[in-house]
Amino acid sequence: MPFTATVLTMFPDAFPGPLGVSLIGTAWRERGLWELETVDIRAFSTDTRGFLDDTPAGGGPGAVLKADVVARAVDSLSGPKRPLLYMSARGRPLTQARVKEWVSPEKGGADGIVVLCGRFEGVDQRVLDARGFEEVSVGDAVLAGGEAAAMVAIEACVRLIPGVLGSGDSLSSESFEDGLLEHPQYTRPRTFEGLDIPEVLLSGDHKKVDQWRQAQRELTTRERRPDLWEAHSAKSQVKSAKLEEK
Amino acid sequence: MPFTATVLTMFPDAFPGPLGVSLIGTAWRERGLWELETVDIRAFSTDTRGFLDDTPAGGGPGAVLKADVVARAVDSLSGPKRPLLYMSARGRPLTQARVKEWVSPEKGGADGIVVLCGRFEGVDQRVLDARGFEEVSVGDAVLAGGEAAAMVAIEACVRLIPGVLGSGDSLSSESFEDGLLEHPQYTRPRTFEGLDIPEVLLSGDHKKVDQWRQAQRELTTRERRPDLWEAHSAKSQVKSAKLEEK
Repeated sequence: MPFTATVLTMFPDAFPGPLGVSLIGTAWRERGLWELETVDIRAFSTDTRGFLDDTPAGGGPGAVLKADVVARAVDSLSGPKRPLLYMSARGRPLTQARVKEWVSPEKGGADGIVVLCGRFEGVDQRVLDARGFEEVSVGDAVLAGGEAAAMVAIEACVRLIPGVLGSGDSLSSESFEDGLLEHPQYTRPRTFEGLDIPEVLLSGDHKKVDQWRQAQRELTTRERRPDLWEAHSAKSQVKSAKLEEK
Repeated sequence: MPFTATVLTMFPDAFPGPLGVSLIGTAWRERGLWELETVDIRAFSTDTRGFLDDTPAGGGPGAVLKADVVARAVDSLSGPKRPLLYMSARGRPLTQARVKEWVSPEKGGADGIVVLCGRFEGVDQRVLDARGFEEVSVGDAVLAGGEAAAMVAIEACVRLIPGVLGSGDSLSSESFEDGLLEHPQYTRPRTFEGLDIPEVLLSGDHKKVDQWRQAQRELTTRERRPDLWEAHSAKSQVKSAKLEEK
């Protein structure tokens, strides 16, 4: 079996969306390099009226997805054990390091991932704990459901599967590998609405180009992501300290 | 015109995906509370071969979406000026505060948003600068394109439009309002696989329930999001200092 992304959702119709287009979509539909499977949570209600949710214990607005419904949906999956993800604003942020773990053969990720999409006010915490779900967040905004977030996580995983991306979409220059944001990009024409491509990029001096890009990466990271910049600086200091010791 | 989300993409087929289901989808298709529009970037190539991209200035792998193509696509939009978003790993993170700005009538957001989805190695920086795009990131992972990320941003906006969410999906208890993650949720049955709902939630003592939930929120935030916790603590200290002064 190729890498299989199984989505537990109340809205299978939301898929494949972006997962069905471009190289990601071709790799699935035509090349069989990965597999997308949706499981309708609604099928796992044992309530005669098909209810999936109930009021939050302790009160409060909204409704909570029931533990037994989710448990039955998860337990219905066969095959090897895969990482279980729950898309949730309460989760740890999605990072490239986590994505790599999920697709890493050593961690059982080569078999795929299972992604639970919530609705309502959330999912009963007990089934998340009992089944060992990792909670994953994509940005600090509130969503109506986990489906769009699940697509983000799945796309991030699938593009790392060998053969999925063509050589044009190289993996060689990746954001986040060293904790810095990427440098800005430019392409022809040389002048666009009076704005020139930065001179250094046209100089043909690879060393200077690299230096300029590195400076841009540091500048952008410091400005837009003080959190990443702080982590990067701390790491650099440890490295320098180690070098000095030698 | 209702709030209109216009997506500039090379893959209109990726939409509507999650934006077409549930209350969000009904609010669009049946109730006309918002509008989804996709614009195919491919139509704006003037190259006879339909090329949209070219090699990065200064060298490197991949290809860069051309400034003039994006400019023509943006400039083709009529109607009132709306916030321009570009989904990019280089962006500032998506936050609830930014989402609220985008839908706020004072900032022109009541008219909608325009979201540019990239592909390749990125978009020529000059068109982003010239047209005033805000770069927005959803998590520190690399994606194949911006479509899934765009859906996350659009869904976060649309659910705030008055009338889109039913009373069941209350907005009253929102994550991120005070910079803390939400507390865990539980619902019937009282015991699931030997795990009980925390006693306090069944006590009927609202004050104790609130205290327990607040403690859980602080615990989870400290553990999973040291960045949010730090910001929250700094704010609390300023507040206490101000109270003491009085």
